[in-house]
This record gives sequence, C-alpha cells and structure tokens, in this order.
Amino acid sequence: MTQHTATMSASWIWYPGDFEIRLHEKMSVKRRSRGVLYPAYWRLDRHYSNVTFRYTYDLPQEERITVAAEGSFSLYVDGKGNDRSDDAVITLPAGRHEINVSVFNDIEVPALFIEGANIRTNSSWEVTSYQNDWVPAGNWTFDSPSSPPSAFRLALTPQEPVSEEMKEGHLLLDFGRETFGYLRFHNLRGSGMVNIYYGESMAEALSTEECYSLDRFEAGEAARSSVDGIYTLNDAKAYRYVWIHADTAVNWDHVSMLYEYVPVTHRSTFECSDPKLNEIYNMSLYTLHLNMREFFLDGIKRDRWVWSGDAYQAFLMNYYSFFDLDVTRRTLIALRGKDPLVMHFNTILDYSLYWFISLYDYYLYTGDIDFIRQYYDRAVTLMDFCLAQRNEEGLLEGRQQDWVFVDWADFKNNGAVSTIQILLARSLEVMSLLAAKLGNVSASTSYVTLAEEIKEKTIRLFWDDSRGGLLHHRVDGVTQSTLTKHASMFALTYDYLSLEQRDSVIRNVMLNPGVPQIRTPYMRFHELAVLCESGQHDYVRQEVLSYWGGMIELGATTFWEEYDPSLADDAHFGMYGGTFGKSLCHAWGAGPIYLFGKYFLGITPSSPEYQTYRIQPNLGGLAFMKGTVPTGKGQVHIEMDHSAIHVESTHGTGLLTFTSAEPPTCEEAEVRSAGNGRYEVAIKAGNRYSIAYRN
Amino acid sequence: MTQHTATMSASWIWYPGDFEIRLHEKMSVKRRSRGVLYPAYWRLDRHYSNVTFRYTYDLPQEERITVAAEGSFSLYVDGKGNDRSDDAVITLPAGRHEINVSVFNDIEVPALFIEGANIRTNSSWEVTSYQNDWVPAGNWTFDSPSSPPSAFRLALTPQEPVSEEMKEGHLLLDFGRETFGYLRFHNLRGSGMVNIYYGESMAEALSTEECYSLDRFEAGEAARSSVDGIYTLNDAKAYRYVWIHADTAVNWDHVSMLYEYVPVTHRSTFECSDPKLNEIYNMSLYTLHLNMREFFLDGIKRDRWVWSGDAYQAFLMNYYSFFDLDVTRRTLIALRGKDPLVMHFNTILDYSLYWFISLYDYYLYTGDIDFIRQYYDRAVTLMDFCLAQRNEEGLLEGRQQDWVFVDWADFKNNGAVSTIQILLARSLEVMSLLAAKLGNVSASTSYVTLAEEIKEKTIRLFWDDSRGGLLHHRVDGVTQSTLTKHASMFALTYDYLSLEQRDSVIRNVMLNPGVPQIRTPYMRFHELAVLCESGQHDYVRQEVLSYWGGMIELGATTFWEEYDPSLADDAHFGMYGGTFGKSLCHAWGAGPIYLFGKYFLGITPSSPEYQTYRIQPNLGGLAFMKGTVPTGKGQVHIEMDHSAIHVESTHGTGLLTFTSAEPPTCEEAEVRSAGNGRYEVAIKAGNRYSIAYRN
Repeated sequence: MTQHTATMSASWIWYPGDFEIRLHEKMSVKRRSRGVLYPAYWRLDRHYSNVTFRYTYDLPQEERITVAAEGSFSLYVDGKGNDRSDDAVITLPAGRHEINVSVFNDIEVPALFIEGANIRTNSSWEVTSYQNDWVPAGNWTFDSPSSPPSAFRLALTPQEPVSEEMKEGHLLLDFGRETFGYLRFHNLRGSGMVNIYYGESMAEALSTEECYSLDRFEAGEAARSSVDGIYTLNDAKAYRYVWIHADTAVNWDHVSMLYEYVPVTHRSTFECSDPKLNEIYNMSLYTLHLNMREFFLDGIKRDRWVWSGDAYQAFLMNYYSFFDLDVTRRTLIALRGKDPLVMHFNTILDYSLYWFISLYDYYLYTGDIDFIRQYYDRAVTLMDFCLAQRNEEGLLEGRQQDWVFVDWADFKNNGAVSTIQILLARSLEVMSLLAAKLGNVSASTSYVTLAEEIKEKTIRLFWDDSRGGLLHHRVDGVTQSTLTKHASMFALTYDYLSLEQRDSVIRNVMLNPGVPQIRTPYMRFHELAVLCESGQHDYVRQEVLSYWGGMIELGATTFWEEYDPSLADDAHFGMYGGTFGKSLCHAWGAGPIYLFGKYFLGITPSSPEYQTYRIQPNLGGLAFMKGTVPTGKGQVHIEMDHSAIHVESTHGTGLLTFTSAEPPTCEEAEVRSAGNGRYEVAIKAGNRYSIAYRN
Repeated sequence: MTQHTATMSASWIWYPGDFEIRLHEKMSVKRRSRGVLYPAYWRLDRHYSNVTFRYTYDLPQEERITVAAEGSFSLYVDGKGNDRSDDAVITLPAGRHEINVSVFNDIEVPALFIEGANIRTNSSWEVTSYQNDWVPAGNWTFDSPSSPPSAFRLALTPQEPVSEEMKEGHLLLDFGRETFGYLRFHNLRGSGMVNIYYGESMAEALSTEECYSLDRFEAGEAARSSVDGIYTLNDAKAYRYVWIHADTAVNWDHVSMLYEYVPVTHRSTFECSDPKLNEIYNMSLYTLHLNMREFFLDGIKRDRWVWSGDAYQAFLMNYYSFFDLDVTRRTLIALRGKDPLVMHFNTILDYSLYWFISLYDYYLYTGDIDFIRQYYDRAVTLMDFCLAQRNEEGLLEGRQQDWVFVDWADFKNNGAVSTIQILLARSLEVMSLLAAKLGNVSASTSYVTLAEEIKEKTIRLFWDDSRGGLLHHRVDGVTQSTLTKHASMFALTYDYLSLEQRDSVIRNVMLNPGVPQIRTPYMRFHELAVLCESGQHDYVRQEVLSYWGGMIELGATTFWEEYDPSLADDAHFGMYGGTFGKSLCHAWGAGPIYLFGKYFLGITPSSPEYQTYRIQPNLGGLAFMKGTVPTGKGQVHIEMDHSAIHVESTHGTGLLTFTSAEPPTCEEAEVRSAGNGRYEVAIKAGNRYSIAYRN
C-alpha cells in the first residue's frame, strides 16, 4: 500500500496485507467451469478478524473525533480497557494520550476510519494481530467514511456488440474483440429460461456442450431484479462472442455488457516501420490490461488465479506500459500470503523463487523502500522455508508434494534442477541487496555468501563443456545428460556466465535447433529477452512477427496461452483435455511490451527509481521506431532511424549508448566514444537531444 | 469429535478442528464491558475457507445421492476436475471411483452432507486444506441436512424471577440464584427507552454507573421485533438480579428469561454427614455447569473466554461430575488453534503446558485414542514451539512477550521458574506416553529422555535442603531465595519427589504458615489436591468448609473467582480495578467436585478408559458419606461410614483400598491385607460389595 504519511488526510486503515489477502481469497474462487465453482487448489489465506489499532497524540486541547469501523469496535484511552466506547463521536482529552481501538470483523477486513481536526487514521497508526507485532497500519486510497475497503470494486463502463446475427435461430453477439464483464439485458420481458454460451472464439460460443463459460437464468425472476430496466448478470465473464438461447416467451430490446477494468494510463507507446509489429504491440497492451485486475491474473477466461511465475512477467510488462503499482503491490502481497508456509506459491517450487526476484524488480523500478520494509520479514521467512529444502549437496530440490514446473515441456524435473538453483542464487542475491538497503549488514553478507556458493556449485556441477551449456538436472548426485535451454537462459539473464560461456550458450544452446525448442509464450518471454541481451534483435523481431503475428493471422484479438503453428483450425482452442480449454487472453502473451520497451527502445533502470538509467536503442532491422517508456514519476521518449536518434526525458539521468559507423554529432551534449564504434551521450531530464549517426 | 465410523448414518463433515475453531472465534468476542465490545486479546484462529473432501467407493450399481453443503460446492469424479457438478441430486456411476467435493465458505465452516443408499458422509471421508494434508474429516452429531454445523446453538429453557420489588421506582427482579441467558419482555407496549442493569449481586444491579453488564433498547422498535408477543434481548448475560429503568410511556406484562445451557446428565452425587459440604458440592456442580458451554469458560459474566489453565481444572471437575466429552474436546481443539504458534495459549507460558497435561487426562479418563491420533501432530508442533524457548541451561523461560503467570500472587516470575520446569517435564512425559500409544517409539523415547533430564535438573537446581522445598526461580544462572508452594506442589502431584522430599514438602512448605498462603481458588485446587494426596483429608475438609463455606455465608449462589475473608461487605465484589469486576460464577470455584470425587470417594482411573481404577475412600473426619462417580461408560457408587463400606460398579475392574483398625470382612470377595492396617478388595463390575471394617 502507498504510505500516506506525508498527508494528514484520514484514510481507512487495517492490518497490513489483509485487504489484499481478503480480496485474493474472494477472487480465487471466481472461476467457473461451465457454471460450476472451480476454486484455486492451494491454501487460501484469510485476514485477521481480531485486531487492535493504536496511536499516541499530544494536543493542547480536547478534540472531537468521528469514528467509523468495518466490524464492531471499541475505543479506549491510556490502556484503560474496562472503560470502552463504541460511540460514533467521541471527545478525546487534551494532553498526551494513547488511543486503542479494537475492531472485530469475521467477514470483511476489520478497518478503521477516524477523523478529527488533528487525529486522523493513516499509516502512522499501528496495529496488532496480538502476536507481539505492533506494525504500521496498511492503508490505500479509501479516504472517505462512505467508501470503506470492503466496497472496493473495479471500474465499469458500458460496451455494445459490434454485430449481431442469428445462428440456428439464436442470437449471436460479437463484441468485436475479447472483452470482460457483465452481460446486460435491456427491457427483459416474458417468462422462461435463458441460456447463454460464451466464447473467446466463435466456435466456442457456438458449442453449447463444450464452451467453458455459460450462464442460465429465468427471465421473469431476472426482470424483477432489473434496475432502471436493465438486468445485469451476477458474474463477469471473458468473451468476444455470446450465443443466447431463450425460450420463445422471452423477449428483450437489446443486449449489451458492462466492461470491468482497472483504470490505467497508457504511459508507453511504440511505433515503428513495420505495421504488423505496431499491431502486435497494441494488442499486447490490451492483453495485459485485460489481465491486470484486482491482481495480475494468468488469463481472464479460465483460471483467473494469481500465479507467481505469470505475475513475474506481467510485473515487467507493466513497468514498460501502465506502470500501475497498485495492482503490482496487491499481487506481491496476495502471493506471499501468511504463515505458516507449508506449500510453495501455487504449489510450485519455482514460483516461490520468482517472488523474490519480482520483489527486487519492484524496488528497482520504483525505489519504494517503505513497501520493502513492510514486507521484508515475510521475505525472510519465505527464504528460510526454501532453504530448508536443500539436499545433502546443498542444492534445492522439490519435495514429494512440490510441483517443479520450469516450463510446459518434455523433460523430467526430478532431483536438483539447474534452473531452480539459478533462481535460488538470484533470490539470495536479491535478499542480500534488500537486506543491505534496510541496513541489515550481517543478513546481507550471509545471503550473498550463500548466493555465491550456490552459483559456483551450479556452474561446477551442471556446466557441460562439450555441449556448451548447463545440463538440466542432477539425480542422486549424478548430473543427467538432458540439455535444455532454461538454465542457461536464466544464467545468462542474471549474468552468471563468463564471456566465453555466454557466447557458447547463445551459439550452442539458444540458437541450436538440436536443443528442444521452447513452445510456451511463458518461456519465450525469457528466451527472447536473453537473445536481445546478446544483440540478436533482428532474430527476435522475426520471431515476434512469426509467433505473435501468427496468432493475429488466425484472428486473435488478444494473445494466447500457447500457440503451435502446426495445429489446424479449431484445434488451436484446445488445451488441458478441453476442446476450448485454452485461454485466448493470457497475460504472458503480452511479452512484446517488454521486448520492445526494454530491448528495442532500450530503456533499463540502472539504479532504483530510475534515478539513473540506460538507453540502448536497437532498430533490430527496422527502418525507424519511436516510443515512450514510463520511468516512475516521468518518462523517456525516443525516436530513431538509420541516421538520427532523438531522446527526451523528464526525470533522472540517462546514459544513451549506441553504435555508429561514423563519428556521431550532437548539438545538445558531448558524444563520448566507448570504443569499438560504440558511443555514449549523457541524457539530462528536461532537454531534447538529437544525435546524427550512421547505423 | 466423536468418530462415527461405526455407524453408516450420514453426518455433516468438515476440516477437523474447524468447527471448534470457528465457534471459538465467535465466542471470544461475546464479552461486553458495560455494553461495549471487549474481545479476547490473543490471535483468534480462523477456519479454512477452501477445502476439498474425497471418498472412494466400489459399488455394483450406480447410486443416486443428495448433496448439501454449507458454502458453494462442486463435485467431480475420478479427478476429472473440469467436469464438475453442483446439483443437489447426482447419480454416481457403478464401479470403483473417487469422489471429490470442493467446498468454499468464507463465513461459516465449509461443510458437506451427502446421503445415498451406500455413500454417506462421515469420518471415513478425508479432507484437505491443500497443504499436503488429506486427513479424516471432522464430524459430530449433525446428522440431518436441515441442521448444519453453523446452526449449532446451546439449549434454551424459560425461567421466571423468584421475586420482584420496586427500588427507587424501578423494577428489580431476582432470579433466586446466578443464571445465564436472554431477558424477555412479554407484551411490551408504548415507546421510549428501556435501560437494563444486570448484577451477579444486588449491589451490582443497583449500581447503574458501575455494573458490568447492561442493555438498552427502544420499546417501540423492540415490540415490533417481538415473536409471539415476546421480545427477547439479543445477547445473553450472567446475572441473578436485573434492575429495569424504563421511560414512563413503556409498559409490559411480565419479564422472564431464557436460560441457555448445555444439556448434561448429572452423573455424580455426593452426600455426607455435613450438610454444609453437601451444599458446597451441589453449588459447585451448578457453578461448573454454568461455565461449561460452547467451551469451558473462566467465568460467565466477565471474560467468557477460553483459558487453558482454567480449563485444565474444569476438565478434571467434569470427569467427576457430568463427564461431558463434547465440551472437553471442543475446548482442547479451540485452545490449540492453528499454526504458526507465535504466542502462548492466552499469551501465558504455563497455559501452553497445561494443554499437554489436559490432553493426557482426556486420554486417561476416556481412552479415546482416535482423538489423540487426530490432534497428535498439533501437540508435536506445540512442544517444538515450547522447547525452542529454553535458555542456555536448558530451562524454559518466558520471552519478553510472554506472561509467566503461575498464580495471582506477590512473586516475580523472571528467569527460569521452577513451576514451569515441572510442568514442562510432565508435558514431555505425557507426550512420551501418547507417542508410545500411537506406536512412535523413537519420539516416545526422546520425549521421556528429555523429561528425565529436565526433572533431574530442576530438582538439582531448585531443591533447597535447609528449607525443605523447591525454590521459586533462577535468574541468570543463580537460584533465588524465594520459596513458594507452587513448584513443590506440582512436583508432588506428578510424583517427582523422594519419600523424604514429599514429607518435607508437606511439613515445611504446604502446611508451613511461614510460606506465603495461596489465595486463589485456582491454585487452592492444586494445593488441596496435594494435601489429599498426602492424607490430609481432615485438614482439607476444614479448609473447604471455611473457604467455600465462607462464600455461602456471604450469600453466594455460585462460587467466586477469588475470596478473601478479610474483606468487608461489597468490597468482595471488586477486582481488576472495577467495583464489580469480580466474577461471582467462576469455573475454578467448583474445585470441591474434584476433591470429593477423587479424594473423599477416592475414585481414580489407573489405566485409560477406567478399564482399571482405584477406589481409596477417605471419610476425612466425616461420619458417613455416599456418592457416585462416572467412569465413562459406567459409574462407581460408594457408601461409607465408620464400620461399613459398600461399593458397586458397572464397568471395569476396581481395586478398593482402605485402612481398618481390625481385620475387615466381606461376603462377596476376598479381603487381602496390604500391610500396616491397609486392606484391598478387587471390585468387579455388576456386583455389590459390602465390607465390615473399623475406621
């Protein structure tokens, strides 16, 4: 939650994390499989129902305050617990006093709102769950007694279908592209049953027996519950097409929908000489936006669950587009949940580890050390939990009950998987960096020492000189011969390889057709990023065109959970044994946002909060490109073609690096040579820089 | 929960412990201080909202089942999670199949009731909270779809005041003795405010400014919510007296109350030659009964919370009276709660330890190994939590955040308190015994080894030869000179002392007026029990007459939280800084039930479930006594005077031991001499034994 300490305005407060944890509990059971509940299959954590808030004030005169609570409450002063009040208006005595307010709520999160001339609830209040834990209260943008946290809802706006037609005597609506929300019937009349079949594809909507989402209601009842002549269905769904089967005695004027979404600012742009890439970029933005809701979801049709590995990527895409930190924070908090840690996040070992890396990314992109401070303890106990799972060689292994995922692919993940060790080493580095930022030197040292140890051991035990990459796993002390791209790719991402090893990995692993190809957009995200890190922009551009462009060719309006060009027609829609099991709007499909922002426009923070950052634009075979990347408070804008680069920024200090075939010129700043045809220009906020160069 | 595996009738099932934990959450916030919420100040654990049940059947034909759930549910077969049903009637296929039913409920406990010809929910079903924990489902007596667990309520019966009078123009009702329940107004009319002041004493009811419990309602509104002409107040209260202040425009015919209680069978009796003791015994039964409700409470007026140290004693009293195991089990489960353990039970170190001892007592008195099996893991993690708190000498110390209680008395509990070590040693012994019963030999051995080590260390470090008892505490490695009765008393109870040490403790500590006296009924319970263990029945009888008799002299109708004979008049009612802060109906006040049953009638189980037991009756100065003690399935009845002992039992094998000044005779069995004037008779179930002897 954003800390509102700077302002004196009152806001609703609660036990930190509990708003997010309660919201996560509710959202995790929204999934319906053909109308029937399909809850998340991991422990859903719950808010504390019984908490006490406290605050110490010192005032020269008494003060009248108003008190609102979600739940039952009692207020007492100076520890005199027998002398309690639950009045809505209370006069507090002058002088120095401590107020305590106990709040109980076993349905929604216990929350408190107090407003007086000076005494107002905000994050300078503390709260306890009675576990020896007086901690700063959580709060957010709930700044009025009439909008308590439990009333939180996403935004709604009406949408109309773009076309209607009759299919087999039933109305088929097409909303033009994938959307999400509540179907509405205007002026519903008559009586009888109405069955609704939703489809992300037309084939799905037309398959009454196999479409994933459906609804059913009795028209007479529904009409009676209409508001202003409109009957709105209870549950929001993901769809482009809707096929409506109604009994003949049922009539209506019109069907529309209420689109449900998080209001965001489109803070990024990307436009280049290839219109297909522009289309891919914008469709990626829409795909990501649909999946960023109460939390970052995997996909809006099917699971609607919060998966840590999926979220890790969505966080990065978000930093290069909407830079919405509320959804990011909610997701980080919900994923971590509460103690005791018994199972891994989403039951997946790797998904616990991604959380550390996501937490550090959040810090790097935002500089929000207050948030890190608030949740650092939860990171420490998560790391304790993970480290306890190391085998006798000190390598992290899945337990019987753990899912070691890595990727949807044909390999075994038993024993110690090298990718897991790389993710653990990075997680430990991240914990070391955060511990240091919080002034905990000894923890920082011990984390980094362990990180180095695991990194060294992993390279030593898994690196295969003859094959030029990291082998996949090690069982009972013996490294197995399977070679996959995954570990090498992450080792390259986190800079764990020597220069020769990097070159070898790119040549012998990443670009080697003999190594099993990566087929999921999930891992393609990392694969293509790594290829960009190695300067393979041209190759990446072509891959994006063929993979994402391929989906568009097949009529996609948002990007899919998986895409296999070899499949025919409606076979694309199947997955997990269901004819329409595949999600056609999946967050991890939006990877081009990240690729274009970070590797083509080339913007990366080099210190927290973008106080310093790098600009390493790369046309990757394009004639020109221009675009904007948000940098927290500000943004960087770049335009580039084969002879000119223009850069403009509003905050922080950038270092533009580029290659030129002849010495470049710039009127606004000095151009320094970095050798080997590389040049650098320091970019200050507020100026526009134009560089003449030759690509 | 009672395991209903033997019967095939269907019952509601849930995640084991969650029914009790949810009920405990609700009851822990019932306390009101002058009408205002006063919640328990420890973490209230919560039920899992998201669980899945499973069951494997094998049937030659398909079977139609009806499904009822508290919460939303979905049923699927053979792991085919995409193919779910939430129909109330489902036909299951023939053959061998596994049913899974997911239930989500974030308000009440997710619960399931399935009924078919063969397939029926009961404790042979398993349930998971998605923590790698398929465990037998919890269930109880909820055997009909229309009486789900969330509808659980105690019994109600109308009661009338025994007298009414006007005091200062307002009606004062007297219900004759302490009671608990909902006040009711018959034929309430008019409009205006009604204020109600409750009192356990008349003085309290008449003190509108200081009585602990009060109510307030508007008569017109109240009348509108009347049912069958009766307005029943929402919240139950503890009181004998009620003073009603109503506006003049308010009228009613009559005021009564609905008594709320757990239906119990009075399975014990005690009658002796001293009518005062008989009165004390019966008043103790009533006191205990009022405090055994959803759980064993400390007191019905004030906290209404579940305290482990208080419950430990109430459990024992219950074994000698109602033998109600439902309240016992609910209390044991609620106290343990869920992980992670961060604070001790009720924040008190000793209270975590009493739980182990209570758990073993439950096993000893009932033989219910299924219950032990179900909760053994929670005992193990509690012990891990406690053991982690030992200091460098291996002694258990309170942390900064812990309350080391021992007793309300003038001594310091810093450092390692000897009483705590004795309780820890006993807890470890108990864990060893239970581990052995469950077949876990290595755990049993390691627990008992540690128990021996702590016992030896405690006697070595705390025993003071010159003062003849255990010193109170040890700070920074130095045993302090404070001598209290407590550690010696518990060491004696658990048989940790040599014969000489026992004698010394009785003489130099327990009966030594120079050692600070025990003033709370809470510790008097243990003190008087220990004195009986040492044959001081005559002394104990006199103490009971003076202490409990003293309360009766002052008008008590139930026994108090504390009694100090030196106080004058209404000063008896004050405690915790409140004029009427003292509870006048406190469970621990009912100790005579235990003293009379266990030490005068003399019945003690010597093996689990009373399969064998001891009968060591002792008149303790009485001319005669007779009484009955329940022994689980059966009972033992004894009559005794100075020349005859009659014994009759219905179950198990007893060993009657008594002292006689001349050789006793018995027609029904052989009388064996045990030396020193002690004699033994083996008592078989179903016979009546009459022994002639001389006291």
